[in-house]
Amino acid sequence: MTRELIDEVLNRIQSQEKNGEGNPRVKEIVARLLRDLFYAMDDLNITSEEMWHACDWLTQTGKNNEWGLVFAGLGIEHFIDVRMDWEDEQAGVHLKTPRTIEGPLYVAGSPESLSYAELENEPNQGDETLYMQGTVVDEEGNPVEGALVEVWHCNLKGLYSYFDSTQSEFNLRRAIRTGKDGRYQFKSFLPVGYSCPPNGCTDNLMKWLGRHGSRPAHIHFFVTAPNYRKLTTQINIDGDPLLGQDFAFADREELVPPITHYTAEQAKALGKDEAFASIDFDFNMVHDSTKIAPGENHRTRAAIVTA
Amino acid sequence: MTRELIDEVLNRIQSQEKNGEGNPRVKEIVARLLRDLFYAMDDLNITSEEMWHACDWLTQTGKNNEWGLVFAGLGIEHFIDVRMDWEDEQAGVHLKTPRTIEGPLYVAGSPESLSYAELENEPNQGDETLYMQGTVVDEEGNPVEGALVEVWHCNLKGLYSYFDSTQSEFNLRRAIRTGKDGRYQFKSFLPVGYSCPPNGCTDNLMKWLGRHGSRPAHIHFFVTAPNYRKLTTQINIDGDPLLGQDFAFADREELVPPITHYTAEQAKALGKDEAFASIDFDFNMVHDSTKIAPGENHRTRAAIVTA
Repeated sequence: MTRELIDEVLNRIQSQEKNGEGNPRVKEIVARLLRDLFYAMDDLNITSEEMWHACDWLTQTGKNNEWGLVFAGLGIEHFIDVRMDWEDEQAGVHLKTPRTIEGPLYVAGSPESLSYAELENEPNQGDETLYMQGTVVDEEGNPVEGALVEVWHCNLKGLYSYFDSTQSEFNLRRAIRTGKDGRYQFKSFLPVGYSCPPNGCTDNLMKWLGRHGSRPAHIHFFVTAPNYRKLTTQINIDGDPLLGQDFAFADREELVPPITHYTAEQAKALGKDEAFASIDFDFNMVHDSTKIAPGENHRTRAAIVTA
Repeated sequence: MTRELIDEVLNRIQSQEKNGEGNPRVKEIVARLLRDLFYAMDDLNITSEEMWHACDWLTQTGKNNEWGLVFAGLGIEHFIDVRMDWEDEQAGVHLKTPRTIEGPLYVAGSPESLSYAELENEPNQGDETLYMQGTVVDEEGNPVEGALVEVWHCNLKGLYSYFDSTQSEFNLRRAIRTGKDGRYQFKSFLPVGYSCPPNGCTDNLMKWLGRHGSRPAHIHFFVTAPNYRKLTTQINIDGDPLLGQDFAFADREELVPPITHYTAEQAKALGKDEAFASIDFDFNMVHDSTKIAPGENHRTRAAIVTA
C-alpha cells in the first residue's frame, strides 16, 4: 500500500479523538506506535492469520503473567537502562556501580535487620555457603549510614519465594540497614542460573527467535538511602558459563565481583564452622538530582504486608 | 540517544539468535517491531515508569481477554481489511459485498437449517421483530446453492450468547444453508449498539485517547461456499446515531441496507401476526483464487461441539 493510504486510515482512527479530552501523553505514544505498526504491517505483508496468532500470543502472555519476562528477554528493560546510562552521562553523572534490570520477581516488605542478615528461612538450602559484604558509599567513597540494602535471589531450583509457593514467606529475601560504617553483610548460598518457564510464551518466543531463555546465576539488589538515588542492580556469580549471554541482557562486566572460596580448614581458622565462598562488593550511590532520571519507577510490585 | 547506539543495543540482542534455528518469519517480524519500538521509545523519551505502566496494561488486557477488542478499537483489524481490499484491487477483484471485521465474538458450531432460521432460542427477546432475507450470488449474479450463511448478533443488553452466560446455548446464532435458489431468510429482532466492558482495558484506552468505545447496532455474517472465498462481513442497522463513528471502524456505506417497517395492519395483510422490520440484502461471493488473500484466517475461535 502507499504511505498516503495508510496515513488516511490512521487519520480516520485519530478523527475519533476529541480535542481536550483524554490523556495527551497516551495520545502521543499511541499515535506514534500505531503509525509504526501499520507501516511495519504493510512492509512485512502481515496476513490476517498472523495478526490473530499475535493476538493469541499477546493474550496468553498476559494470562501467564509473562510480560515482565518478555520485556527482559527482548531487551526492552535493558534498553531503558542504556537510555538512563546515557542520560546520566549527558548530566555528567558517573555510576561506579552500574544499574541493571530489576526483573519481575521483587517482593516488597521483606524482614529488615541492622548490618547483617541471614537470607535462608531454613538452613542448608544450598550447595556452598556464601558470605557477601561491603560498604554503601557516596560519590566520594564515604560510608552512607541508614541505607537499606534489599537483596533477593532464587533457590537451587531457580525459583523465587512468593512466586514459588513451596518456599516459605520471604525465603532468600531480606533488607539490611547500614549503620554508621555503611557496612552490610549477609549469609546465604551461591544461587544458580535458571530459565524461563518451559513452553511458556517467553520460552516459545525465544525458540522462534533461535535464542535460549536462560540467565546466569545472579543476586538482585535495591539500595536506597535518603537524598540518594535508588540503585537497582544485580551481581553475577563469577564463573557461570552463561556470563555474557544472559537472555535478559542484565549482566555487566563491573557486576561480576571475584569470589574467594575458603576450605573447611581455612574457614575454621576464621572462626566459621564450614567451607564458604566470599564476595566483597561496595554499592556506590549518587545524590539525587532533578537533572537525572529518578531511581524509582513506581511500577506495580508484589508485596507482603505484615502487621 | 543516537540511532547508532540504539542499533548497537539491537545488534547485541540479535547476536543471541543462532543461524538456522528458530522461525525466520518471527525473526523478521520481531526484528522490525523491536527496532521501531526502540526508536519510538527514544524519540518519545519513554521513562522506566511508563514502560512498567505499559507492562501492567499489556498483562491486564490479556487477563481480561480484551486483545481482540483492542485490535478492533485501534483499527488494527480494520487495517488488515483495508490491506486485503487493496490486494483485491491489485488483483482486479471487485467485491460488491465489502468485507468487514469479524470481531472477537463468533462461536463455531451453531445449529444449521435449510433456507430459513429463527435466531431466538426463546421468543420476544427484542422490541421489533426483524426478517432479513436475500440471495447468495456469484460474480455474475447467479444464485449459489449450498452456501452457508452464519449469522450472530447481540441481545438488547448488547451481549452475545456464550460470552454472556445468562443466555442459552447459541441464542441469536444460527447457520442457514441455501438451496437451489441461493436464498436465505431469518427471523430475529433488531439488535442494539453496545460499548466495551466499562473500566476494562479497552474502555480505559479509549478514554485516554479521548474516544468513545461504542459500536452502532449491527449483525455479523460469515458466508462460505465451496470454491468461493469465505466472506466475513456485517450489516449495520440503518438510523443508528453512531453510524460513521463505529469505534471498531467496521461500518461501511455499502453495508447499511434500508429497513422497511411494516405496521401490525400491513403485516396482517402479508400473513404475519405482528408488526415487523424487513431488510433485504444479497451476499456477493467471489471465486477463490491463489491470486487473492484467503478468506479464512484460522484464528483461534470459540466453539461449542454438540454430539
